[in-house]
Amino acid sequence: MQVATLDAGRVFDALGDPTRRAIIDRLSQGPQSVSHLAGPLNITLTAVSQHLAVLQACGLARTEKVGRVRTCRIEEAGFRTVEQWIAEHRSLWTRRLDRLGDLLAEED
Amino acid sequence: MQVATLDAGRVFDALGDPTRRAIIDRLSQGPQSVSHLAGPLNITLTAVSQHLAVLQACGLARTEKVGRVRTCRIEEAGFRTVEQWIAEHRSLWTRRLDRLGDLLAEED
Repeated sequence: MQVATLDAGRVFDALGDPTRRAIIDRLSQGPQSVSHLAGPLNITLTAVSQHLAVLQACGLARTEKVGRVRTCRIEEAGFRTVEQWIAEHRSLWTRRLDRLGDLLAEED
Repeated sequence: MQVATLDAGRVFDALGDPTRRAIIDRLSQGPQSVSHLAGPLNITLTAVSQHLAVLQACGLARTEKVGRVRTCRIEEAGFRTVEQWIAEHRSLWTRRLDRLGDLLAEED
């Protein structure tokens, strides 16, 4: 599945769901088949597929069919998108921290 | 407001909302009063306060009342929580990448 644009908002939205975070937890251990993913999560294959579709759409996971088995693995792109968003907003904040210090000093 | 436990899931959930990301965008530029935040976002003060309560609860923002003005600023803790979650899942993935390579090699 091709990821046209990677949107930090979509990644955050995807990771706001506990089941999808659990899927990422599992995939962090290594690639797994969809049926292996479904078992311990105690949800149907259909539900897993729907969650995987969301994770794929925002660049956090990838599935590939090898023979009769659909295997899932983590995708780097979604992680980079979040890291970049955090870094951008954090660095801005750090640059402005001095200004805040000045503001607070003025009020003393 | 005290942040008892910082939960990556709550931070992701908070950042999944476009208005809350817009608030963080604005706060990245520096501290602002609640009324200043509300104006350009075209939402009521009540709505801004509700979004700020969510951002505060997960450690992404902080508000302080100075005189009659309630000022908001970015909080580091929520950002660190996300960075840590991403780093943990990413590093696991990187460590397992070799194993994936082995798996794929076996299938060739």
